Amino acid sequence: MATFSIEASDTDSFARLGRLRTLHGHISTPAFVPLASRGAVKGLLPAEVASIGFQMVLGNTFHLMLSPGAELIEQLGGLHSFIGWEGPIITDSGGFQVFSMGHGTVADEIKSRAPHRARASSRGTVLAIEEQGVRFRSYIDGSQHRLTPERSMQVQASLRSDIALAFDECTPFHVSRDYTARSMERTHRWLARCIDWHEANAPKGQLLYGIVQGGVYQDLRRQSSALVASSGCDGVAIGGSLGGCKEQMHQVVGYALSELRTQAQLMPRHLLGIGEVDDLIACVQLGIDTFDCAMPTRLARHGTALVADPQSRWRMDLLRAARRADRAPLLEGCPCHACSGRLSRAYLRHLVSAREINGVRLLTEHNLSFIAALMRCLREAIASGCLPAVAAQLRGGANPHLVFSPTSSLSASADCSTFL
Amino acid sequence: MATFSIEASDTDSFARLGRLRTLHGHISTPAFVPLASRGAVKGLLPAEVASIGFQMVLGNTFHLMLSPGAELIEQLGGLHSFIGWEGPIITDSGGFQVFSMGHGTVADEIKSRAPHRARASSRGTVLAIEEQGVRFRSYIDGSQHRLTPERSMQVQASLRSDIALAFDECTPFHVSRDYTARSMERTHRWLARCIDWHEANAPKGQLLYGIVQGGVYQDLRRQSSALVASSGCDGVAIGGSLGGCKEQMHQVVGYALSELRTQAQLMPRHLLGIGEVDDLIACVQLGIDTFDCAMPTRLARHGTALVADPQSRWRMDLLRAARRADRAPLLEGCPCHACSGRLSRAYLRHLVSAREINGVRLLTEHNLSFIAALMRCLREAIASGCLPAVAAQLRGGANPHLVFSPTSSLSASADCSTFL
Repeated sequence: MATFSIEASDTDSFARLGRLRTLHGHISTPAFVPLASRGAVKGLLPAEVASIGFQMVLGNTFHLMLSPGAELIEQLGGLHSFIGWEGPIITDSGGFQVFSMGHGTVADEIKSRAPHRARASSRGTVLAIEEQGVRFRSYIDGSQHRLTPERSMQVQASLRSDIALAFDECTPFHVSRDYTARSMERTHRWLARCIDWHEANAPKGQLLYGIVQGGVYQDLRRQSSALVASSGCDGVAIGGSLGGCKEQMHQVVGYALSELRTQAQLMPRHLLGIGEVDDLIACVQLGIDTFDCAMPTRLARHGTALVADPQSRWRMDLLRAARRADRAPLLEGCPCHACSGRLSRAYLRHLVSAREINGVRLLTEHNLSFIAALMRCLREAIASGCLPAVAAQLRGGANPHLVFSPTSSLSASADCSTFL
Repeated sequence: MATFSIEASDTDSFARLGRLRTLHGHISTPAFVPLASRGAVKGLLPAEVASIGFQMVLGNTFHLMLSPGAELIEQLGGLHSFIGWEGPIITDSGGFQVFSMGHGTVADEIKSRAPHRARASSRGTVLAIEEQGVRFRSYIDGSQHRLTPERSMQVQASLRSDIALAFDECTPFHVSRDYTARSMERTHRWLARCIDWHEANAPKGQLLYGIVQGGVYQDLRRQSSALVASSGCDGVAIGGSLGGCKEQMHQVVGYALSELRTQAQLMPRHLLGIGEVDDLIACVQLGIDTFDCAMPTRLARHGTALVADPQSRWRMDLLRAARRADRAPLLEGCPCHACSGRLSRAYLRHLVSAREINGVRLLTEHNLSFIAALMRCLREAIASGCLPAVAAQLRGGANPHLVFSPTSSLSASADCSTFL
């Protein structure tokens, strides 16, 4: 059985409805993948993540290799049984985190976040980036570690993830074209080493995704895509700098995908680290199948709820004074505990402001429910041939919980014209 | 209908099985009351707290009056609807927290915790303790507040709790007998003012408990008990310093109860701030009906799980190296998510050590499940006339989830001799 199949395609864009098969079950795409970076979706138990509608979670190679250690997790039966998640798991390569330390604020820059939000680099530091790999100091205890293509593959093999990502250098926005090109070429050499190690040693059935780099440069992105497309990898992930603004980001993703459309239509495509509402809609239309991003869960930890309002970038900051006596629940039709239990924004504001962990828990569930509903809308829209109209509705502020609700006038059984 | 009825009594001790009726339902006693200090049991949603087996939670007058404010909670419909808890709520008077600030480490001293665990006093400070009441500075924003018997009653009326506690001065262990006696007398005068305010203004059906003070002195405790017993209050709570060790604590609780046994057998009796496993057993045998304590939930936040092992004071510190590769779940037969999902101690240790909030959530649920099972055992033991044997079993390290389990050899239907 092929790893990936396309079940329907949008005629107006490059969006496709797919089915991605892994050892621990399938994922209906387009899909969002919540982060279980250190082996837990912060605030939610595995059964809750699944019941919200997610089929896969992402574990972080970098964090898990430092603590509790990949060998310990292997000894205890692998990541699935360690964390109690029975569905598919994708693990990243560790590259993003380790290079984030090296480039300081790269994590913020790469994903086009505003400079004032960039965080100071943590205690960890990169000691050397060499052809062989990277040496760095742990942010936990200062101990020295090495991450190479082979070591990254080995860690991901120990974790027994369903999908492993090849080890890449994640270049930031501010480096030169020349550095980007040389770094990309090294990433390509590292991909070959990952493939060699994976072929010889990977656990049976583990899929390997190659990573497209090349910064914001069209020729480099196309070159990198073509290389991954012909590499024999099971899938492709788009990483590195996607530019300085959303328009450029969509453009750069387009560069990477244009090559894949002609050469590797059936390769599943993952976009690393992107998850804002409008970006998810746009990138689904560009042909991305899966996404991971800290955004919905991180916003929750900072007291921000996702709501159906493009004017506020789909965000409601509960700490604002206007929420102090606001009796309304966050969002009508949302099945999360906060909304279905009719908890007021005033109460959620209080929890956030008192730093009660129930605030994090409830907002995390709410935000992930929003993203799950959004992705479900997009899948149903592709299936029913209504993507242009549904995407326009969602961009305009439609509540994703209600777009396809049986009680809504916008029912999937209706003609697409109802969305216009 | 009487507020409290006794359904069975132990013939070997002063323990009694009771039923406490409130506006929001009844509580089967002896019962433990988890803390929802700032309007949330840290980590658990109301439905989960109820499904673990708790019928009442405790809200903190002091914390809630400072943030988000009692008037706001009243405006939003009272504490029950604000926090989404439909069962009974008891609120404390605010005295314990405000005097804890005044006496520095009183919170630790009063409850006989070891001196090295005492915490530095927070930003908040007591400005004056006067006949009228107490003036203090908020630990949140430094603003000045006044707490008087009337204000405490008013706040609790705004919260619409089912059970309000009278405002008392909570004296620490280190003060003199003379200070303790004078403070107790003021607490008695404050009780009269609380009763006056409550009779004139309290929401219909709200119960009022008077508080017994008197430090470690038998005559003072008896005097204070007698006063509360004849005060017309609906119940009694035992507060203040209970001595320097467990033996003294049990003795002091005994002093307070001896007077109530003869004068006010049908007054429900709450013991403030006590919740260690052996103390719960001992104090149930002394005739306490309800308990509240931060212990099970606070231990969870510090990475400690309750287990059936008196040698370790029923505690397992997950941060110890021995837990690093420990595949076992915390406790057989425990229905919490961690144990029923067979999550390993190694995984829980990892969550705690990585400061993942799921660690707090899972351990809080586990610890409260342990205490709920313990209290259920004690209730069933009183009902079936087996308390001496069951108490001995539990003190010896029996797993409370298994003592009355249908699959256990120690079945409730069996003769009590099976417990011997």
